[in-house]
Amino acid sequence: MTADWIAVDWGTTHLRAWAMTGAEIAASAESDDGMSRLAPDEFEPALLRLVGDWLGEGATRVTACGMVGARQGWAEAPYRPVPCTAAGGGTLPVLTHDARLDVRIIPGLSQDSPADVMRGEETQIAGFVAANPKFDGILCLPGTHTKWAHVSAEEVVSFRTFMTGEIFALLSSQSVLRHSLAAEDWDADAFADAVGEGLSRPESFAARAFSLRAEHLLHDQSATVSRSRLSGWLIGAELAAARPYWLGQPVALIGAPALCHLYAAALKSQGLEAPIADGDAMTLAGLAAVQLGRV
Amino acid sequence: MTADWIAVDWGTTHLRAWAMTGAEIAASAESDDGMSRLAPDEFEPALLRLVGDWLGEGATRVTACGMVGARQGWAEAPYRPVPCTAAGGGTLPVLTHDARLDVRIIPGLSQDSPADVMRGEETQIAGFVAANPKFDGILCLPGTHTKWAHVSAEEVVSFRTFMTGEIFALLSSQSVLRHSLAAEDWDADAFADAVGEGLSRPESFAARAFSLRAEHLLHDQSATVSRSRLSGWLIGAELAAARPYWLGQPVALIGAPALCHLYAAALKSQGLEAPIADGDAMTLAGLAAVQLGRV
Repeated sequence: MTADWIAVDWGTTHLRAWAMTGAEIAASAESDDGMSRLAPDEFEPALLRLVGDWLGEGATRVTACGMVGARQGWAEAPYRPVPCTAAGGGTLPVLTHDARLDVRIIPGLSQDSPADVMRGEETQIAGFVAANPKFDGILCLPGTHTKWAHVSAEEVVSFRTFMTGEIFALLSSQSVLRHSLAAEDWDADAFADAVGEGLSRPESFAARAFSLRAEHLLHDQSATVSRSRLSGWLIGAELAAARPYWLGQPVALIGAPALCHLYAAALKSQGLEAPIADGDAMTLAGLAAVQLGRV
Repeated sequence: MTADWIAVDWGTTHLRAWAMTGAEIAASAESDDGMSRLAPDEFEPALLRLVGDWLGEGATRVTACGMVGARQGWAEAPYRPVPCTAAGGGTLPVLTHDARLDVRIIPGLSQDSPADVMRGEETQIAGFVAANPKFDGILCLPGTHTKWAHVSAEEVVSFRTFMTGEIFALLSSQSVLRHSLAAEDWDADAFADAVGEGLSRPESFAARAFSLRAEHLLHDQSATVSRSRLSGWLIGAELAAARPYWLGQPVALIGAPALCHLYAAALKSQGLEAPIADGDAMTLAGLAAVQLGRV
């Protein structure tokens, strides 16, 4: 099978690729050859291992987004400062040894003040805007580093990143709380209460977090409840800080459905209905929009 | 050299011991045989490796505080619920194979609501109270898990733990920010400004934290400034949440001098002068107070 072109989402920890026929997926593959484990000269071999079978005789266009374009990536694609289109500013061609590859990287976006950067999310935003060109409002992209972006007239006007997901992951896996948080289940009521507490008293986060350990030791509080509360306090504080973004605005969520549903529930507690767009679908739509010149 | 008695501070990561003659230090020793790396039957050998040379023919009293008394420690010394004296509630005798050892563990304190626990700090508080029996006010013990304790009439009335130190350590060493925070120096002005920002807008912490990475990438902000700001935001938020403790109260700080000086500077920005007592000295004073029956 030979691809018309290849779509690539190359993040810090994963490499994912799709063999495309126009805007249709013909095949897909992924590996854990993320940016963080590759030296600059290891990107091309990692890509060939994954997509070599899809290459024909001529050069095949590979359109890539994500941390592959970071300073520590394959080739640095300089940030484009907002306000600007999400992904309409051209791509960075990358020199390859194998003539069957014609690799282009989509640059990330930067903001001067407050200082902020994104790499990868701009492509998801481009995918959303390609499907909703009249959208004027806020896109929230929950994840390790959640982004809130103001989109208007097909441009990203401003954005703000929250380390909410990474703080949650560090506390659940690396901190003294890890034994109190080892659960897979979820308690929606505990989460909802904690969102309200996080919104109204965000300063208490570091004390509330420790209280989960004490509640576990003294009152046998379940890990499911503790995990849901920790998440709610963090997302509640994030909503309090992001209020200038979402208050009175149309908001749509883009990302992994389970995580987006948490943000949707938290926003709903503030009277706001936010539709959810699947993150992978938006990544692919954005890569296709760039490849097909629709940005 | 034979000890009258032996004072032991046995924490999660370290074991420290002092050979005592009355309230005087005759010798000291330490190892990294902390509670977290020892199975229950490994505590006695670890102690003997460190203090064996100090033992005479009869049984020598060893008075210990800290995580050695946790459920995962040598023997569980059940928490004493506040309000109560810091360390006047008796000690837990531990069975040993070696008849030269007479080991006693000082129990930690617990609070039912908000749920909270301490192990080790109660001994520092006991040391402070032994030297300042009339003290009526707030003791703040900065550390990995900073404690704020209300002390009155030689009792701990209530307390609250903040994970400020652990959150700072995780973000500086394990997160995406680690490259932006690799500095040893300190910027007191950046810290002071950040304390004010953390006090007034604590909800923005997760966004401000990420901005340190962006400031590094876009504006080459120094790691010294970034590290000082991160610390200031966290301590500022902690001061906001702990305001019911310190507002209008006498406050004294107990702990490592460098860290206590940060808290003292932050409190001073709120108009409050807090004297500093050395944490190690207070631990030893507390162990001596228990050993000598002065609690």
